[in-house]
Amino acid sequence: MTHKPLKRYLPILQWAQSYNRQALSGDLLAAVIVTFMLIPQSLAYALLAGLPPEAGLYASIAPILLYAIFGTSRALAVGPVAVVSLMTAVALQAVAEQGSMGYAVAALTLAGLSGVMLLAMGFLKLGFMANFLSHPVIAGFITASGILIAASQIKHILGVDAGGHTLPELVVSLSEHLDQTNLITLGIGVVAMGFLFWVRKGLKPLLRHFGLGPRPADMITKAGPVAAVVVTTVVVWGLGLDAQGVNIVGAVPQGLPPFTLPSFSPDLIRLLILPACLISIIGFVESISVAQTLAAKKRDRIDPDQELIGLGAANIGAAFSGGFPVTGGFSRSVVNFDAGAETAAAGAFTAVGLCIAALALTPLIYFLPVATLSATIIVAVLSLVDFSILKRSWLYSKADFIAVTATILFTLGMGVETGVSVGVVLSIVLHLYRSSRPHIAEVGLVPGTQHFRNINRHKVLTDPSLVTIRIDESLYFANARFLEDYIYDRLASDPAIRNVVFMCSAVNEIDLSALESLEAINQRLQDMGIKLHLSEVKGPVMDRLERTHFLDAMTGQVFLSQYDAWIRLAPVPNEVQMPEVGVSSIN
Amino acid sequence: MTHKPLKRYLPILQWAQSYNRQALSGDLLAAVIVTFMLIPQSLAYALLAGLPPEAGLYASIAPILLYAIFGTSRALAVGPVAVVSLMTAVALQAVAEQGSMGYAVAALTLAGLSGVMLLAMGFLKLGFMANFLSHPVIAGFITASGILIAASQIKHILGVDAGGHTLPELVVSLSEHLDQTNLITLGIGVVAMGFLFWVRKGLKPLLRHFGLGPRPADMITKAGPVAAVVVTTVVVWGLGLDAQGVNIVGAVPQGLPPFTLPSFSPDLIRLLILPACLISIIGFVESISVAQTLAAKKRDRIDPDQELIGLGAANIGAAFSGGFPVTGGFSRSVVNFDAGAETAAAGAFTAVGLCIAALALTPLIYFLPVATLSATIIVAVLSLVDFSILKRSWLYSKADFIAVTATILFTLGMGVETGVSVGVVLSIVLHLYRSSRPHIAEVGLVPGTQHFRNINRHKVLTDPSLVTIRIDESLYFANARFLEDYIYDRLASDPAIRNVVFMCSAVNEIDLSALESLEAINQRLQDMGIKLHLSEVKGPVMDRLERTHFLDAMTGQVFLSQYDAWIRLAPVPNEVQMPEVGVSSIN
Repeated sequence: MTHKPLKRYLPILQWAQSYNRQALSGDLLAAVIVTFMLIPQSLAYALLAGLPPEAGLYASIAPILLYAIFGTSRALAVGPVAVVSLMTAVALQAVAEQGSMGYAVAALTLAGLSGVMLLAMGFLKLGFMANFLSHPVIAGFITASGILIAASQIKHILGVDAGGHTLPELVVSLSEHLDQTNLITLGIGVVAMGFLFWVRKGLKPLLRHFGLGPRPADMITKAGPVAAVVVTTVVVWGLGLDAQGVNIVGAVPQGLPPFTLPSFSPDLIRLLILPACLISIIGFVESISVAQTLAAKKRDRIDPDQELIGLGAANIGAAFSGGFPVTGGFSRSVVNFDAGAETAAAGAFTAVGLCIAALALTPLIYFLPVATLSATIIVAVLSLVDFSILKRSWLYSKADFIAVTATILFTLGMGVETGVSVGVVLSIVLHLYRSSRPHIAEVGLVPGTQHFRNINRHKVLTDPSLVTIRIDESLYFANARFLEDYIYDRLASDPAIRNVVFMCSAVNEIDLSALESLEAINQRLQDMGIKLHLSEVKGPVMDRLERTHFLDAMTGQVFLSQYDAWIRLAPVPNEVQMPEVGVSSIN
Repeated sequence: MTHKPLKRYLPILQWAQSYNRQALSGDLLAAVIVTFMLIPQSLAYALLAGLPPEAGLYASIAPILLYAIFGTSRALAVGPVAVVSLMTAVALQAVAEQGSMGYAVAALTLAGLSGVMLLAMGFLKLGFMANFLSHPVIAGFITASGILIAASQIKHILGVDAGGHTLPELVVSLSEHLDQTNLITLGIGVVAMGFLFWVRKGLKPLLRHFGLGPRPADMITKAGPVAAVVVTTVVVWGLGLDAQGVNIVGAVPQGLPPFTLPSFSPDLIRLLILPACLISIIGFVESISVAQTLAAKKRDRIDPDQELIGLGAANIGAAFSGGFPVTGGFSRSVVNFDAGAETAAAGAFTAVGLCIAALALTPLIYFLPVATLSATIIVAVLSLVDFSILKRSWLYSKADFIAVTATILFTLGMGVETGVSVGVVLSIVLHLYRSSRPHIAEVGLVPGTQHFRNINRHKVLTDPSLVTIRIDESLYFANARFLEDYIYDRLASDPAIRNVVFMCSAVNEIDLSALESLEAINQRLQDMGIKLHLSEVKGPVMDRLERTHFLDAMTGQVFLSQYDAWIRLAPVPNEVQMPEVGVSSIN
């Protein structure tokens, strides 16, 4: 890595020099398909973020180009995504009035802050931080966010002016405005939703039935939102439904993304710093998950720290070109990959396609009903809603279940920022709690082997004067005292004991607190006339212990293997059977 | 435990029924000695907490009695201690003016809140929470607190009116008031300090030299503060030095502890809740450390959860009898133990002694100079200051070093509450960071054994088609992705590999995130034509895996021991030598 710093920071140099005609044709086809998919999506997510529709197009152009230069994934499609757009709306409504100039500037600032944070995390190699979002917490958060996003769009389907950022707020506000429902809007929204659901579930089997291959069938179904946009726009225009109270997108400026400046006001930055941090982490996690999944299919490797730099550049690009926070989107990246994108050039071509749309197509969407965009969002996010994680975690691990349940409930009840924070903190606390009460097993020799297992689970040989304790956790401050308590309790009940062996095969670290506990145990055992030994101490742990006086003070020995300890310390080693080749496994 | 609930919650029932004359004489002697030691200490710590001197006596009476009923330690002496008194002063000065009625009520409220928290933690069995204060953080905190406490007392030695709660504040304030120094006060303070230091360092060898036994010599040196109090009081009274500007204790009410009520004001409680929480935890940690050390000497066991109840009762007692937060003190508990205290009755007798003092002795301390009390505090706390933890942690573990250094710097620079919070949070963050990048070793067979060790550290047998990875950490969300990255990198460079074994001897837990990573690894290895096996999976981990579909989907097997895996998977098992008895250990 270090000998080619430029290529490390500019992945484009890696693929550009071997670019050929075959890659070009794959990339061009993928770009055309993704462009058609991205136009309604980007308009819709701008709406979700509370911004004018053109912001969605702008947020898809410069960011895609910058990611193509700095990102490591060849298939990732960067732009506005549902969850980040919702988080953007939540963050912005705390600092500015929706529709005001301040709101748009705050969106640029949020993207800029997020970009700077992602870049900083990338240069500091902090990509591992994303790992503290556990899979169940992410799953719970995505599910709850999907519900929140869908609920937030119902007002556009009804054509009413409701609000709220949590499920209870949304439900109350919607029920208060239910009597103002515009029935024509509702009709358009419901039909569009029904059509889009049918496209997802029913169209593909139908196309296959008519002899289309699986990939073309898949591509056509992805064009469903475009069809819905075209048809509903034509209907509203033809029947003049905007005069009947149907909300339409209206005038969208025609042109390339403008050059914009985010605000550098310290007050605004202070208000946005925490949301920007959460958006960065959530966006990064979503993006890296997709990128790694797709890279794995082609045996590519993703560099998480370089991905941070790619996404950081993309967000800074959004800040200076009229956009809002962006990240790698799941569905469009999969489409890009399936359509045959070979390199990040596919993204660059998509950006060109969106530029054409911004220049030429915007007058055509004047009569596009907002309800259609909301229908697109609802159908897209409801596919994210998946409660199976609740059952799966309940069966496998109660701690994961608690974390995922709390994440879902807090996200729905208190909003996205609280929800994800509670999930992260709770999973860390539960992890610490479990590791503070480690599993400790007393072990004996499995007859006919050199292998030692739990005396409560296996038929093993033991010796009354020898207690072997296998500690199933690293020893650190949170569990150091637990070991002391355990060993004193064990010894108090048994006067025959002369030797204690701590089998350290699972001890990956002994911190200073734990070392002091070991010293105390050694001292106390010495007072009782019992020797303390260690076995199977790992290399790194042993290196550290050798820098202390503990090994000199220790009454017993350090054995390379537990079997060595048994041979030396068990008084009747001759009764132990010799191991035989071919011992069968337990499974 | 559950079959004798009353004895569990009332440890007094355990020792009271076997109480005899021998225990009585030991307890009485210890009580007399501790009473003499506690009188100046309790006056001094009341001063440190910013309260009138009698509060120190009151805080030593009801709490001792209640602890004798509910506590499990037979030697712990409960009452005001230095660090908790300093934390009390910091907490109270944020809510009330020192010397006001509100200040004293806030002290009662703080004790009451702390008592309720300790009781709640005891009933909820949350004693393990104290384990999250690592030994180095405690050592750093105690050292820094000792410096802060000593610095806070210099104003009394100088006889000036300085203030501040951090070292920079104290230094600035003292230097501003240096010109107002009362030279007579300074003389008394310096002589008293010199005398007390000499008593600690020089008197005991002298007494031993004159033929006194070690224990009587020790007891007499502990009476040093009493001698300093008597002599300086007589000098001030005889020479009328109070008229020369020497601050004296003055009139102290004569009588038993009053019945007092803490405040139930929600505003006050909200302000004090965080300090009360920190005081509870710090007090508990200090107390349990002493209690366990002393119990270990007599092979007694301390029940941490019952200790919480004992200390909780003691603090609630303080709240209703004119005291302030208390805990088990280190030096007086050691004196109590050394003087021969057999049961908690020694504490009860100490309470009687303090009642007599409160009734009869208070007029005698009218002329006691405040500088003497401050000298007592300074000499006591400077013995707590010990920077050796810095060197020890530097040599052993950089993470511990960072935590202890931060604790010391933040305690000195930002105060006790910030200091201890930073220490706890930092040690948890560093622990998580380390466990998120686990040690992973590729292992091979140690010739002539069934034992497997790191190929980079030991001469071992390996096979080109078989890669065995020993994972030296539990697999959980923070490191799940790290394992994926590691294994994909390892396999990408080596096309000969046909079998991968994860040796799980150090894996104590596999959470749902890690299970999903294992599923992903299994799938990807299958695509590459490589089988995934597990070996030495622990009982509890195996139980959980069996509740999932992972074992069905896994391409390989689960082996009881790594040696079984080697026998089955290495193509040339015949070349492996048979183990011999008496393999020597590495140390």
